[in-house]
Amino acid sequence: MQCLNVDLGDRSYPIYIGSGLFDSSDLLVSHMKGRQVCIVTDDTVAPLYLGNLERVLQGFKVTKVILPTGEAFKNWATLQQIFDALLNDRHDRRTTLIALGGGVIGDMTGFAAACYQRGVDFIQIPTTLLSQVDSSVGGKTGINHPAGKNMIGAFYQPQAVLIDTDSLKTLPEREISAGLAEIIKYGFIRDAQFLAWLESNMPALRALDSQLITEAIQRSCAIKAEVVAADEREGGVRAILNLGHTFGHAIETHQGYGNWLHGEAVGAGMVMALDLSARMGWISSEDLARGTSVVASAGLPVMPPENMSQTDFRRLMAVDKKVLDGQLRLVLLRALGDATVTTDFDADALSGCLAMSPA
Amino acid sequence: MQCLNVDLGDRSYPIYIGSGLFDSSDLLVSHMKGRQVCIVTDDTVAPLYLGNLERVLQGFKVTKVILPTGEAFKNWATLQQIFDALLNDRHDRRTTLIALGGGVIGDMTGFAAACYQRGVDFIQIPTTLLSQVDSSVGGKTGINHPAGKNMIGAFYQPQAVLIDTDSLKTLPEREISAGLAEIIKYGFIRDAQFLAWLESNMPALRALDSQLITEAIQRSCAIKAEVVAADEREGGVRAILNLGHTFGHAIETHQGYGNWLHGEAVGAGMVMALDLSARMGWISSEDLARGTSVVASAGLPVMPPENMSQTDFRRLMAVDKKVLDGQLRLVLLRALGDATVTTDFDADALSGCLAMSPA
Repeated sequence: MQCLNVDLGDRSYPIYIGSGLFDSSDLLVSHMKGRQVCIVTDDTVAPLYLGNLERVLQGFKVTKVILPTGEAFKNWATLQQIFDALLNDRHDRRTTLIALGGGVIGDMTGFAAACYQRGVDFIQIPTTLLSQVDSSVGGKTGINHPAGKNMIGAFYQPQAVLIDTDSLKTLPEREISAGLAEIIKYGFIRDAQFLAWLESNMPALRALDSQLITEAIQRSCAIKAEVVAADEREGGVRAILNLGHTFGHAIETHQGYGNWLHGEAVGAGMVMALDLSARMGWISSEDLARGTSVVASAGLPVMPPENMSQTDFRRLMAVDKKVLDGQLRLVLLRALGDATVTTDFDADALSGCLAMSPA
Repeated sequence: MQCLNVDLGDRSYPIYIGSGLFDSSDLLVSHMKGRQVCIVTDDTVAPLYLGNLERVLQGFKVTKVILPTGEAFKNWATLQQIFDALLNDRHDRRTTLIALGGGVIGDMTGFAAACYQRGVDFIQIPTTLLSQVDSSVGGKTGINHPAGKNMIGAFYQPQAVLIDTDSLKTLPEREISAGLAEIIKYGFIRDAQFLAWLESNMPALRALDSQLITEAIQRSCAIKAEVVAADEREGGVRAILNLGHTFGHAIETHQGYGNWLHGEAVGAGMVMALDLSARMGWISSEDLARGTSVVASAGLPVMPPENMSQTDFRRLMAVDKKVLDGQLRLVLLRALGDATVTTDFDADALSGCLAMSPA
């Protein structure tokens, strides 16, 4: 087992990464302060792993909330089911919520923990590759609004993150690719050497080679932890973690939540960000080709959906959380391994980039 | 104008108290960082003061949200109207929300600010005596759940609090009394000298003598600021601010939100807490009589509603946020001016106290 620390002063917490962690009660229980616990999961993950967790939590008063699966349910009505269960079973301020599932479950459970009685503890047990390397670390929680993704939420840190790599064995191939999108992102924004390592090892990573995938998760979490520690509430550098996400969120919203996986939208979105960086002359056409090829090799789309026009992109990107005083800000690359957040992009270059979509 | 500081490190903020503050744009604008602002108010306060505020904010992009008045609307559906307006007018992370109204508006606006894009700034302009001395200071925000009051919310501090004492002139007498309940509370929990001062000046306070009411607000806010600075997230001493509130919340929930004013329920609830303190032998029967008389002199009820049974109280008090591991905690007095939070109360004494209600 590996252990990383997210360094946030009195909100610091450990990330445990390894095989067989579901069956290790000590790790979990050492981060709980009361005898009440509420496990929140979905109807895809529950049949696979809820039993393991219940065995580990014998002796606790356990409430289970099994939500419908998918981004389409990341809304207030679903969140309310968590509050209803907590109040129905009279959970008090010492309770611990456990998020068992992918990013949607983690975001909603974290937000429920942030709001229930103005804040109770929670633990992340991410079961998808995407949530293991991204949403479970860093304390971004929330739900969607019909007008935009993650528009309602809180910065709220967990007590601990438990990543059991065994859970990847039950993941569909498409979701492995989606997770690899965020892993590739860390190479693009911060670590050219890691990017080269990913290029060399992509087939083995897609085949879930145990040692390599653990290394990829560990490196990804380490980069994320470092960026989050530098800027917890995204006043500055943290925004680079959104490489490809402004384009990607527009794609997800346009297609209806859940039709494109988040990682797929980020894959295409990162290629768009690289394309814009190349049009600006910040990276070479070789770098663009190389970046596009890494994304493709992970089994991800490198083009936005055919039915999206430039107008669609502009309308949906205007509500991005990085917009300030009406000015769109984008994460672009100055080189592979070096990202920056900027408002200083050429309008024509952006038009050219968006026109990649056959509008 | 008087200015107090709530000392919370990088979340510190000023409370301004005085006459004519609505018309002073400098105070307000100095606490805003963008050009966007969203004023949230209700249909009672809007006709009285919204115009003043709009005049002061000329040059800003102002969104107005006018909500229905009352505790019955302190729920998710109403909160959603704030998010809808913010997204519709494309407010970004630099926006400022302004709560113009009583405690319900302040709590909902603060919670909306805590959650919108994971947190934007807000300013409290409380227009009722109750919210001026209580809910506008200290950062407790939230909404009600059908199963309990303020069960969903956040600790989230404003940028500033502006208390314009002129706004009291339009308040109904019943709401002045409700505000005096919380003012009396500060005397009970922390300041016997202030309690004696209130006893002497109650008729003039009810008549809104300008100098005296400003002094009462200032002293109340100072006590609250001191307690909150010592314990922002209510891990300990802050709970004494809830004197009478466990009983009071039970009364409010039982009667249906809005039928008893919060201050009225707290008035009766404080007398119940004093009664229990006397039954425990912690305060004398003279102190109980004196305390009851101060509450009555403010025009507040000193008995719970006739239709509430002991069983009703026990059921509703079991979901109080101060319950930990199934154990009810109450705020009781060791003397007038000295409160403590305790689980150490006699079961028979509590039964006797609850039986004050003719059940």
